[in-house]
Amino acid sequence: MAEGLARLTGRRIALLIEEGFSAREVLDPLRVLTAEGAEVAIVGPTTRTPYKDKTLSQEVSATVGSSGARMQNFDALVIPGGHAPDRIRMRHALVDMIAEAMTTGKPVAAICHGPQALITANVLRGRTLTCWPSIAVDVTNAGGLYVDRPVVRDGNLITSRKSDDLPAFLDALITALTERPTP
Amino acid sequence: MAEGLARLTGRRIALLIEEGFSAREVLDPLRVLTAEGAEVAIVGPTTRTPYKDKTLSQEVSATVGSSGARMQNFDALVIPGGHAPDRIRMRHALVDMIAEAMTTGKPVAAICHGPQALITANVLRGRTLTCWPSIAVDVTNAGGLYVDRPVVRDGNLITSRKSDDLPAFLDALITALTERPTP
Repeated sequence: MAEGLARLTGRRIALLIEEGFSAREVLDPLRVLTAEGAEVAIVGPTTRTPYKDKTLSQEVSATVGSSGARMQNFDALVIPGGHAPDRIRMRHALVDMIAEAMTTGKPVAAICHGPQALITANVLRGRTLTCWPSIAVDVTNAGGLYVDRPVVRDGNLITSRKSDDLPAFLDALITALTERPTP
Repeated sequence: MAEGLARLTGRRIALLIEEGFSAREVLDPLRVLTAEGAEVAIVGPTTRTPYKDKTLSQEVSATVGSSGARMQNFDALVIPGGHAPDRIRMRHALVDMIAEAMTTGKPVAAICHGPQALITANVLRGRTLTCWPSIAVDVTNAGGLYVDRPVVRDGNLITSRKSDDLPAFLDALITALTERPTP
């Protein structure tokens, strides 16, 4: 991945957050997408208290509260993994953002357990994707077509299996964003 | 719950374990079922290293390794919640035990995220159950009939939503076991 080319100048990306996130799957997208010139908002239920990662060793605060977040203000959405998607999927405002991003065709990138939130948003019927293997059966039962590959792109939907897939995952997201007209 | 009546003397119960378990949902069944006279085996992938609960403050070792565990040696199966079911569902030997318990009609009691393992065992079609609300959509997509009640009993299948439901959950399991002939 060639960083620093600022291929994403002017692009606004919503990175969802909740308790128990995978640290790499939040911090790597934040670093790489910011280095590419994107404005990355960390969107969570509240901006008042920081969220802890699943090993309880990192804290990240939301910069935008979900009650004030609208997908119309963003060009793409990232859903990290860990235990966070199990909580994200119970937050109506976050699930609504996912559904709106999918309806409007904006890039949606979900990694590891991230597709759990896609299941709740009911957007997987007929879509090809990958995920952490424990939830492959849930993805299939939700109408998705599960494949085991480091990164899968099906139109605006980009998915990966685990943190080790992050370079390919972020490359695919950057490509999907640069294919779209600058806002 | 009347403890100490030894209503379960001679009954053998398999309590599944993996990393990230809910401490209450392992320790309460272990204590209550043992007090009722049952022999409770903690069944996990290995007996060599202890498993940590989801807050990393408790450790529990498996007393029986899953490779040597057979459902024919047990009268009932308990699946605790927390993050453990996300791992239990990827262990073929444990999923096979669940499937065999359901096929043979032995009591299966799953709480919180425990039903994730029931989804993977493919045993929920047409069954009525409850679970932690984040996975209700997964249960429904797997053919289950989700209801929001402290405890649900559908034949041999007993389910609850969360740790606070444990007294009703264990009462229902004890009742289901006492209805069956002593082995």
